[in-house]
Amino acid sequence: MKTLKEKILNNGESINGGLLKVDNFLNHQIDASLMMEIAKEFVRRYSGKQIDKIITVEASGIAPATMVGYLLDLPVLFAKKSKPGTMGSNMLTAEVFSFTKNSSYTMYINGSYLNSGEKYLFIDDFLANGKAAEGILGLVTQAGAEIVGMGFIIEKGFQNGGKELRDKGIHVESLAIIESLDNGKIVFRE
Amino acid sequence: MKTLKEKILNNGESINGGLLKVDNFLNHQIDASLMMEIAKEFVRRYSGKQIDKIITVEASGIAPATMVGYLLDLPVLFAKKSKPGTMGSNMLTAEVFSFTKNSSYTMYINGSYLNSGEKYLFIDDFLANGKAAEGILGLVTQAGAEIVGMGFIIEKGFQNGGKELRDKGIHVESLAIIESLDNGKIVFRE
Repeated sequence: MKTLKEKILNNGESINGGLLKVDNFLNHQIDASLMMEIAKEFVRRYSGKQIDKIITVEASGIAPATMVGYLLDLPVLFAKKSKPGTMGSNMLTAEVFSFTKNSSYTMYINGSYLNSGEKYLFIDDFLANGKAAEGILGLVTQAGAEIVGMGFIIEKGFQNGGKELRDKGIHVESLAIIESLDNGKIVFRE
Repeated sequence: MKTLKEKILNNGESINGGLLKVDNFLNHQIDASLMMEIAKEFVRRYSGKQIDKIITVEASGIAPATMVGYLLDLPVLFAKKSKPGTMGSNMLTAEVFSFTKNSSYTMYINGSYLNSGEKYLFIDDFLANGKAAEGILGLVTQAGAEIVGMGFIIEKGFQNGGKELRDKGIHVESLAIIESLDNGKIVFRE
């Protein structure tokens, strides 16, 4: 996706340890018009699929997922990263290790929003080691529902999450795949 | 806002201690089409105001704020509730006490996204005691910028945040004001 790649090149910052900082338009400040363009592209790539609900993880997944939900007129469910006071007894959890933060967190979803037999499209900002995606896959499967696709704005192609998800037969779509961040230079996969 | 009030009556749950649970369309599962309607109403209520940027707090503020940013073609900045690994040295913080969770959290904003002289519209899901709003007001003011309005989807009229913000001369707009949640019954202010 050309607009996105240009935005990453112009505003992204490759910092040491294989991190890509895109706080300027995605992870802290959001370019809402770009989110709509991104959502349109996801809708195009998953056209023809039956989708019942969009699922994401707070916080950076919410903006693109909400735009996809708006375009498809579908509800958007976001997993929480801190224990909600009011979720009640039907709470599903998954432990997720974040390489970026070098620590684990728990993901919480109210099981009553995951319906057996329904088809879910997962939308998130980044795919790196795929741990958040695996957590979501586990929760959705546990509820007897199905993941019909996983769409990411940016995939770090030099990490193994994308390969692992695709090897499981999941329809993964990443709008920009980073081949390398070596020496502070952002190189896309062609 | 009629659609919103109906949604609250049909899907909201008044639970003990003055809490209103709207996980079905706002705080866990998001009704994206409703978020767009809400954003249009905010845009209408603040029409004629000069606004340079939308500001909100993760996570539930992100969906409505992004829709407002989309409609006005403005960037959306969201304050974080956990310390970001990659924010750098220019980090502004505010301590916020949450009555809902009965604990404090720290709000983080990268100061380089708050520009002196700029005008900010704050959008959030709930106004109760107004502590998050005060935190944002402090950070924006500290950066030499200005809050031109604060728009909330739901205001708990029986708590004091709304009065305190309006007494400071802030243009507060709440799309649904709850008069009372006594005995599990949701009563709106007319």
